[in-house]
Order: sequence, then structure tokens, then C-alpha cells
Amino acid sequence: MLDEKQISSLETPCIVIDVDLARKNIQAMQERVAAAHCRLRPHIKTHKMPLFSLMQIEAGADGITCAKVSEAEVMADGGCRDIFIAYPMVGRARTERAIALSRRVDRLILAVDSLEGAKMLSDAAVAAGVTLEVRLEIDTGAGRTGIQIDRAPDLAVAISALPGLRLTGIYTFKSLVYEGKPTEDNALAAAEEGRMMHDTAEAIRAAGVPIEDISAGSTPTGILAAETGLVNEVRPGTYIFKDFMLTKEHAGTMDEIAVRFYATVVSTNHKEYAVIDGGTKCFPTDVVPMVPPFYYPGYALVEGNPDLHLSRMNEEHGIVTSDSGNTGLHVGQVISLIPNHVCTAINMQNSVYLLENGVLRKEKVAARGMLV
Amino acid sequence: MLDEKQISSLETPCIVIDVDLARKNIQAMQERVAAAHCRLRPHIKTHKMPLFSLMQIEAGADGITCAKVSEAEVMADGGCRDIFIAYPMVGRARTERAIALSRRVDRLILAVDSLEGAKMLSDAAVAAGVTLEVRLEIDTGAGRTGIQIDRAPDLAVAISALPGLRLTGIYTFKSLVYEGKPTEDNALAAAEEGRMMHDTAEAIRAAGVPIEDISAGSTPTGILAAETGLVNEVRPGTYIFKDFMLTKEHAGTMDEIAVRFYATVVSTNHKEYAVIDGGTKCFPTDVVPMVPPFYYPGYALVEGNPDLHLSRMNEEHGIVTSDSGNTGLHVGQVISLIPNHVCTAINMQNSVYLLENGVLRKEKVAARGMLV
Repeated sequence: MLDEKQISSLETPCIVIDVDLARKNIQAMQERVAAAHCRLRPHIKTHKMPLFSLMQIEAGADGITCAKVSEAEVMADGGCRDIFIAYPMVGRARTERAIALSRRVDRLILAVDSLEGAKMLSDAAVAAGVTLEVRLEIDTGAGRTGIQIDRAPDLAVAISALPGLRLTGIYTFKSLVYEGKPTEDNALAAAEEGRMMHDTAEAIRAAGVPIEDISAGSTPTGILAAETGLVNEVRPGTYIFKDFMLTKEHAGTMDEIAVRFYATVVSTNHKEYAVIDGGTKCFPTDVVPMVPPFYYPGYALVEGNPDLHLSRMNEEHGIVTSDSGNTGLHVGQVISLIPNHVCTAINMQNSVYLLENGVLRKEKVAARGMLV
Repeated sequence: MLDEKQISSLETPCIVIDVDLARKNIQAMQERVAAAHCRLRPHIKTHKMPLFSLMQIEAGADGITCAKVSEAEVMADGGCRDIFIAYPMVGRARTERAIALSRRVDRLILAVDSLEGAKMLSDAAVAAGVTLEVRLEIDTGAGRTGIQIDRAPDLAVAISALPGLRLTGIYTFKSLVYEGKPTEDNALAAAEEGRMMHDTAEAIRAAGVPIEDISAGSTPTGILAAETGLVNEVRPGTYIFKDFMLTKEHAGTMDEIAVRFYATVVSTNHKEYAVIDGGTKCFPTDVVPMVPPFYYPGYALVEGNPDLHLSRMNEEHGIVTSDSGNTGLHVGQVISLIPNHVCTAINMQNSVYLLENGVLRKEKVAARGMLV
């Protein structure tokens, strides 16, 4: 990915993103989804940078998806005009910011998954004198937010009766869950996702609420869900950079991964292990090595050397162990690693390096750590 | 900690720091260490904010400790004049920044733990025309950086012969390791720490290198190591805010913990669990629940309700489960949680709320995410 001179110019530990490869990933997803006559609304959770949102829109995306209003504000500041905040809009301060944001973009879609939440949002909208477009989140098995399918029509009717809200669609995040359990058959998961969302939409329409948007899809199921013809929007995120996790989920290949960590070896006083200059502040810990289902060999994958594993970390120390008992690493050496989960990896960085047409530059991760 | 009105003003998920309680913790540590005729050089890893460094210095600390040069720069910008970067100084860019920093503070101490690293640092110092004060890191059993005790005298002699470097001391991080294994007997660990460091210093002096500073100590062992009389500086960090982990390590009580998470319940469609608006982007995952030695019940401790546990997270979703099968939580409710490990918790936040004399205000975590 980088030549020797570029590697020696890096301030480690750091992340480098191959922008040319990211463009290819953007193009490939856009083409497949468009060919299925479906709309694409990528989730910004993976890149957290307006420039990549604009790249996705330029390639044909209809808009973007965020999780939080503070992320949406950053993307609006960066030029995005059509934003879906796919997370139940609950909380006074958050709602006030969302209403303010709705006044300065072309389209802002908010999310609800309960009547209590919708009522509070309705009250705020009425008080502010605005009408907010909302989508109802459907729980298709991921076990977090969303209303159960059998309760969705009644809730949709109740929400559509509230002033200040305009219910225009439903959405879900299901990913690789099939009949309530994880599956390795992406097509099976996507088929169930399409059917569940289509049937739910039909039931809501039959109850008298003429919703239009049926939004589903993750990176593993996005294209396949689009190809069912049963949804009209998908919201994948990770596809832009891909990661080791996606290769395990049969949704990416190693040569499609556009992100690398670079770290410097700082200590080799024991031949069985070396210490690199990044620990839990740099490498995310949401994926724990050596646990099911994928048994990742470390907190990131040491590139080009299957003998080495990032096995243990403190905040600033990454302990690279060797299966053979001798790491062969030396002080000052720079190694590259592939992220298990790229979204949480990017979130640890205040800035990243971008590599584009052979040129390296630094870019702030403008929406990192945005929690509100 | 907060009244109803203050809670409703919070933008959740967030962290609130009780500054008055932090001051008490600062004072208590300073008094105990000073009474032992030892110097205190607190580690900024816990707070990452210059204002707390200045509070520690004002209370009597001799200087501060950082892990990275980018953190030290932030602290120097904030007014700190005496800084120890307690991490092997390896890497061209990092070294250049350290040399630049050395020109604008009263005292900057760097760290080495290998001859290769020391030679590169020496070369850079000579090229820049400066002399850098360095300390040698000693491996007292933590199993990460540091030179083994039996190799320390030879290495100290070799380093002290290098131009551009001035070797003035040794340091270690051992914490609750005794005879190579974790212990619950803090006094035993501290006694071993003091003895090991004292003996190493004597051996280095006997080899002809007149080092002065013997620096050790964490929050669990800091006071006890100081009281051995065998070290002349300790570098605890977590004591300023304390956390649930420290209570397990017999180094703090629940009423000394100065930090709380606040999060809003966004979804309660299942009575067995509720979803709060913070996940792995807000709550750190370096401490995994239900694993030895401490079996933390969740990713943070739900305050005031032992029936509830933050059991599962995605990036934006925190799943709070109930032992009784009914969380009793409602949409819009704000709950407070106590961090397992406060240092990594603060590092996830772009800003935090400070509560001082009853008044809440926001403060940027200026040195969060500083990796270089």
C-alpha cells in the first residue's frame, strides 16, 4: 500500500485509508444496488468524514444515514442535504438539535420505535412549528431497538395520528440474523429480511398508513436484500472500507480492505513478544480475540506474518506475540495491521492519513466520537 | 451528584466529573506521598485535561507524567513546565516533536528501554544540538516494556556513554504484580516494587552511573511504595477520579469515585431489556464483563439498581438487562452508571461535563485520543 519513504513519514500509531480502493468499493455497491432498482443510503458510521459521504452521493447514493444528530450536523456542515438519522429520536437536547438541523437541509428523516418517544417528538415539533418526517424502526431479530412486527401496524396508526410528524416509511437493521439466530448464509438472511419488511409494510398500509420507504440492509445483506425487490432502500456502511470481519461474513475479500493500521515497534527485550506503540486507545476492543464465532487471532491482523498476533493490550502498549517463540521484530520497525472491525477502529482516531493517487495527506475524522 | 434539573439539561450519553471530589482525591494522595518524603508526579492518562494537571501541581506535585509526546504538548500548552514522557521514545516523528518540546518547557524527561532506541535518540539529540534527560524503564514484572533487572546495569552504562543523553533515573510500572503474578495484597506488591527498584538503582550506581530518580507506583501501590522509603517518586494516575476497578483492587471506595456516565433510555419494547443511547463509542470495552479476576457485572455499573446490567453493546446501542426479567425503565428516563475503568472511559469522550460548586459546565478533553 505504501512505499518505504511514505512509511517512514508516518506519525505512528495511525490509520491509512486507500482512497482509490474506497472509490472502487463505493462504485461496486452503487452499481449492484442500482441494477436491482433499489436506492442506496450509505451509513456514515464507517468513515465518519464528510468527504466520503460526498463521494458516495456523487456515485449515485440518494442520501446518507447517520446514527446521531451530532454526526448529521457534521455531515450537513460538509455539504450533505438528505440525511436519515436511523436511531430512535429520544431526548430533549437531541430533539432540539434535530429540529434545528431540519431547517437547514433539504430532507431530514428521523426515527421512532415507540409511542412514548413519538409523542415527545410530536410535542417538540408542534412547539417549534415544524413537521418532521419519521420512519418507524422494525425489530427483525437483531435484539436491540425497533418495534416487534406484530405490533408495528397499531403503532404506525397511532404515530401517524400525532401532529407534527409525517410517517413515511419503515426501516430495520437485521444483518446476518435468520430465524432469530446468526447465519452464515447471507442470501437466506437477506431473503428473510426482504420478506419481513415487505409484509410489515403491507400490513401497515392495510391498516391505513400509506408508507412509501422500506429500508433495510447491511453490508453483508445489502445487495442481496435489494435484489429481492421487496425493499426500496438499503443502508450498508462498512462496504466502503471493508475489514477482516466482513471477510469472515462472506461479504468482502482481503484485497478489498482499504484500511491499515501502522505501528512502530518500541521494545523487544523479550524475544517471545514485542511491544508496539498502540494499545486500546488505537486498536478497538469491541472484538475480543479467540472467542466464537470467528476466533480472531488478535485485536488486529498483523499483515504478511501469520506467526505474529496482537494478543494483549494496555492503553498505550500493544503486545505482539509469536507462535514460533521469536517475533523477529526490532526496535524502530514499522508494521502494518488489518482491522477486525473498521468502524470502531476509525472512531478511535482524531485524524487519519488518506492515500490518493499515490499521495499521502492527513484528514480530521470530523464525526468521530459524536455521541449526542 | 446532580439534581433533576441538571440531569435534564445533559446532552446524553455523557460523562460528568465531580471536581470537588477530584480535588479531595488529589489532596489525599498528595498528603500521604509527601508525608512519606516522596515526590509525586501524577500520570495524566486518567483526566487528559490540563486543568486537572494544574490542580495536581498546585496541590504540590513536582510535575506530571504523560505516555505520549502529543499528550505532553497539550499539557505544555496548558501551562505544565515539568513533564516526564514515561514511554520508550522510539520513532522519528515522535522524537522530533519531543526535541521541539524540550526547548519550551523547564524540564522534559524522556524514556528508553533499549540500546537501539537510545542510540536513535542520541543521534537525533546530537543532530539537533540538545542534551535530553532520560530515564531507563525497568521491567518489574508487568510484562510489557522495560529492561530486565539483571540486564539494567550494563544497559545503563552503555546509555550513559551516548552523546546527547543524560541518564538521571529509572522508572517502572508494576502495579499489583507480585513474584510475576497478580496479587490482592497491595502492600506486598509495593514492598517488592520498592525493593526491586532500590536494588536496581544501587546496582546501576555501583556500575558507575550516578542516577538520582527512582520512580515507581500506580494508584494501588503508590502510597505504599512511597512509604517503603526505597523510591523517591511515584506516578499514580487513576486516584484523581477513581473507578469501580480500584474498589476491587482495594485502592478506593465507592464514595470516592468522582465520575459518572449519564445515558437516556431510548427503547423499551421488550420488558427484559432496555436500550440506552450509548454503546461502544461511549462505554469502553477494554474491561470485558463476567471474566476473571473481578467478574464485572457489565460494561459499567448501573448506579442504584443492582437488578440492571449493561450487558451487551453495539456502537450506539447499550442493552441494559434485568435479572428479574423486567427492567422497569421507560423511554426518556436518564440513568447513571459508574465506570469500570475511568481512564479508557474518559478517552472515549470529546468533551465532558464538570460539576464544581454545584455548577455544571462543558470542558473539552484536550488530550483525548492522542496517540503519537
